[in-house]
Amino acid sequence: MASGKLKHVTIVGVGLLGGSAALALKACHPGLHVAGVGRRRESLDAAAAAGTLDSAHLDAAEAVAHTDLVILATPVGAFERHLRAMAPHLPAGAMVTDVGSTKASVVRAAERVLGRGGPFVGSHPMAGSERKGVAFARADLFDGATCIVTPTRHTPPKLVARAEALWQSLGMRTLRLAPAAHDRAVARVSHLPHALAALLMMLPGDADLPVAATGFRDATRLAGGDPEMWRDIFLTNRVAVLDALDRMDRSLADFRKLVDDADADGIEKFLARAKARRDDTVARTFSDRRVAME
Amino acid sequence: MASGKLKHVTIVGVGLLGGSAALALKACHPGLHVAGVGRRRESLDAAAAAGTLDSAHLDAAEAVAHTDLVILATPVGAFERHLRAMAPHLPAGAMVTDVGSTKASVVRAAERVLGRGGPFVGSHPMAGSERKGVAFARADLFDGATCIVTPTRHTPPKLVARAEALWQSLGMRTLRLAPAAHDRAVARVSHLPHALAALLMMLPGDADLPVAATGFRDATRLAGGDPEMWRDIFLTNRVAVLDALDRMDRSLADFRKLVDDADADGIEKFLARAKARRDDTVARTFSDRRVAME
Repeated sequence: MASGKLKHVTIVGVGLLGGSAALALKACHPGLHVAGVGRRRESLDAAAAAGTLDSAHLDAAEAVAHTDLVILATPVGAFERHLRAMAPHLPAGAMVTDVGSTKASVVRAAERVLGRGGPFVGSHPMAGSERKGVAFARADLFDGATCIVTPTRHTPPKLVARAEALWQSLGMRTLRLAPAAHDRAVARVSHLPHALAALLMMLPGDADLPVAATGFRDATRLAGGDPEMWRDIFLTNRVAVLDALDRMDRSLADFRKLVDDADADGIEKFLARAKARRDDTVARTFSDRRVAME
Repeated sequence: MASGKLKHVTIVGVGLLGGSAALALKACHPGLHVAGVGRRRESLDAAAAAGTLDSAHLDAAEAVAHTDLVILATPVGAFERHLRAMAPHLPAGAMVTDVGSTKASVVRAAERVLGRGGPFVGSHPMAGSERKGVAFARADLFDGATCIVTPTRHTPPKLVARAEALWQSLGMRTLRLAPAAHDRAVARVSHLPHALAALLMMLPGDADLPVAATGFRDATRLAGGDPEMWRDIFLTNRVAVLDALDRMDRSLADFRKLVDDADADGIEKFLARAKARRDDTVARTFSDRRVAME
């Protein structure tokens, strides 16, 4: 689909996100052929029988031979292997993107394997669920959520526009960030809050927990996330996560000093600034759109 | 009310909590006289005109002369002054309690002024609202929430039972903790989460915030609280808050090491333990009762 109609899509990794992308694309592109690539024949066949896929492949090379678009949706650690397998077989004009939740290492690997200046553009559709697997895939998973598209200075503007149009066709709001800026932002607004929720959850003794009320429940909600998925997120975004943890360590020390000094004025000013920024962010960031799960 | 019917109650500090206690007590004790003590004649007169109070006083000494029960509901910093003013005038058999959100310093001051072994028992009804002032007082503010009652080893068991019966008559679930154990528990499950929410809110740059989704919104909800009220909470529970901040600093350093070492197994085990504890706490602590605002 250098331009025009999308006829053939290859989804590599048919889980919750890959399966939902298949369903959503089929819903808005009648006649689209969706080829799925996976490791286990049975689950691919089940997805094909359910109508999520039109063809099932154990080999990415074979699946991409006639494709317009490839979406990588395996864990990010497997991206480079799949890119190497498919590279010699990609048709000219096909676009390659992904759904990985960290971007700098992914984009670097893709540009190394497929070359700079296309056909790869990184994407992070910020949608998901606590549930894993293609059985929970939904055609409306992406609808109303945000997708961050992460071009580099080598990516042709036409390719960026094509990636944005793809996600917008699934009902998403798109946002453009450089890969490193993306990783820094998600480390601060998503990965650090997740780590703190888990640390908060483990801090009280058993005797303290009966006192917990809604504040503790909300502050620890993220600690209920999937440990395996979050382990991979912390590892693949390691450098930006370490930077966010160090910033938190320094601001924790600053706040501790205010309390240790019994600095009433300093504590109140800090809390008032945080409240003003929170109220403003709620009004500006959360009110104009449906907020999806990260 | 050494035993039997409650006839006369004195509320010192007629704001959201004091006013709500007045309304709730009047609703379940027909004929009860509620005397209110405050600093400003106009707001007391308004509360009396609204039927929240039966008599209004600028002087605690005068208000307690014939009372069965005193509830301290001013900011905790003013408790000792009021206790000294009322001490010579308290009838034998009257009980004194409070609604303060920290307990060790409050109980120490009360035992110093009124003596050990009664008539004071500390209470922390965990109910409230973002709204301040008697205008927002509600008879059902306490209904379904938890009240922590904090006797010392000197407090007569009968007095503890009387305080528990009082809060239970307003629909509350009661929990008994020593004052220091109370302060430690609330520092860990309420005050530390509040500080972290404010710190998290201030950490991202302006360019990072458009990426924020529901996780960040929930993790920072507590940062929307009243800065003045929370300043006082951090100051009055300073020692337990510093201990909680130090524990968080140490566990943040432990987690940082796991990420720095790229210790996949260690990260996953930690996240899995936090998830198990979170799931268990949600099932045990939050499911059997309405959870009130702290």
